[in-house]
Amino acid sequence: MSVLVELSIFPIGQGPSVGTHVARAVEIIRKSGLAHRLGPMGTCIEGEWDEVMAVVGDCYRAMARDCERVYLTLKADARRGRDRGLDKKTASVEEKLKEGEGP
Amino acid sequence: MSVLVELSIFPIGQGPSVGTHVARAVEIIRKSGLAHRLGPMGTCIEGEWDEVMAVVGDCYRAMARDCERVYLTLKADARRGRDRGLDKKTASVEEKLKEGEGP
Amino acid sequence: MSVLVELSIFPIGQGPSVGTHVARAVEIIRKSGLAHRLGPMGTCIEGEWDEVMAVVGDCYRAMARDCERVYLTLKADARRGRDRGLDKKTASVEEKLKEGEGP
Amino acid sequence: MSVLVELSIFPIGQGPSVGTHVARAVEIIRKSGLAHRLGPMGTCIEGEWDEVMAVVGDCYRAMARDCERVYLTLKADARRGRDRGLDKKTASVEEKLKEGEGP
Repeated sequence: MSVLVELSIFPIGQGPSVGTHVARAVEIIRKSGLAHRLGPMGTCIEGEWDEVMAVVGDCYRAMARDCERVYLTLKADARRGRDRGLDKKTASVEEKLKEGEGP
Repeated sequence: MSVLVELSIFPIGQGPSVGTHVARAVEIIRKSGLAHRLGPMGTCIEGEWDEVMAVVGDCYRAMARDCERVYLTLKADARRGRDRGLDKKTASVEEKLKEGEGP
Repeated sequence: MSVLVELSIFPIGQGPSVGTHVARAVEIIRKSGLAHRLGPMGTCIEGEWDEVMAVVGDCYRAMARDCERVYLTLKADARRGRDRGLDKKTASVEEKLKEGEGP
Repeated sequence: MSVLVELSIFPIGQGPSVGTHVARAVEIIRKSGLAHRLGPMGTCIEGEWDEVMAVVGDCYRAMARDCERVYLTLKADARRGRDRGLDKKTASVEEKLKEGEGP
């Protein structure tokens, strides 16, 4: 069962700009080779639970090495028989919106 | 101070497919005229706190009318002097990633 | 339909200790008179959507006045016909755990 | 660095009552021996990242075995040098609230 995870991770106490730390986490996600999509409030990652959570752990450990306090939020949505949810979930909603616009 | 909000809202107890309900919420967000972006795990909305939260309330009420149980998660990030965060936050991370690739 | 909301709100960029800011938000929640419970990772508030979200807005505005950047996460669970969910939800799970221990 | 994690996990599509599934997850958390606290909107667990996330994974796998769709949200707060955050975080806020009440 593949899972879609959205991860937001940042340090508390390194000033109001956390982009450099966020970029390092996104770099770790990219290098993992897992399907992912960067968004304004978090990065979505798709894969098997164990492989996605291993990457989340790598992001956490990298930030915890440098920062006194780390905060993260994560949402996961797992559905049997679904693949390519990263594309299909938004496509399905877009489709429904078009249908609703009627003739 | 403008705020970026990511909203995920769905019914519990209407079966495993919740896309129709989600599409209705996204429709409400679209009609609000606020800047927004649909993602695989939620929709980001940008604006002043009161106007964004009014739209969140509209999404909630529309779903609560039809569904016995409604669940929602929301993340908000507000930063003084920022505008167009919907575009700039990801652009800034992309930029940092490119710099890091350097020669 | 009454709603249970869990709110976590804190500033980013005011150093790693955010307890003073959190206490001010909890003070606002207490003064609202709404049923609530302080937890290690957030405060749960119960009431009608409009009254709970008005308190959340008060917490946000108070923090945004003093802090350059404010982050908040919120989960809401609304269920028809439920009241006193703040007590009943945990009591129901505790009850199920006891049954499971059976002879 | 010890971490405080709040986990909410439930199935989508098994009807509006999810208490039995939640109780099973809480049972797994209890049996782990890690410090934890049950709340109305999630269960807080404290420990080292690897041990806490192993328990989260056990909860996920147990639910994914029986349910077509599983949703979970997780917040983590890790702070260097903190122990017993499960008790100390709320105690610190309560303390600040009392001070604020003054003579």
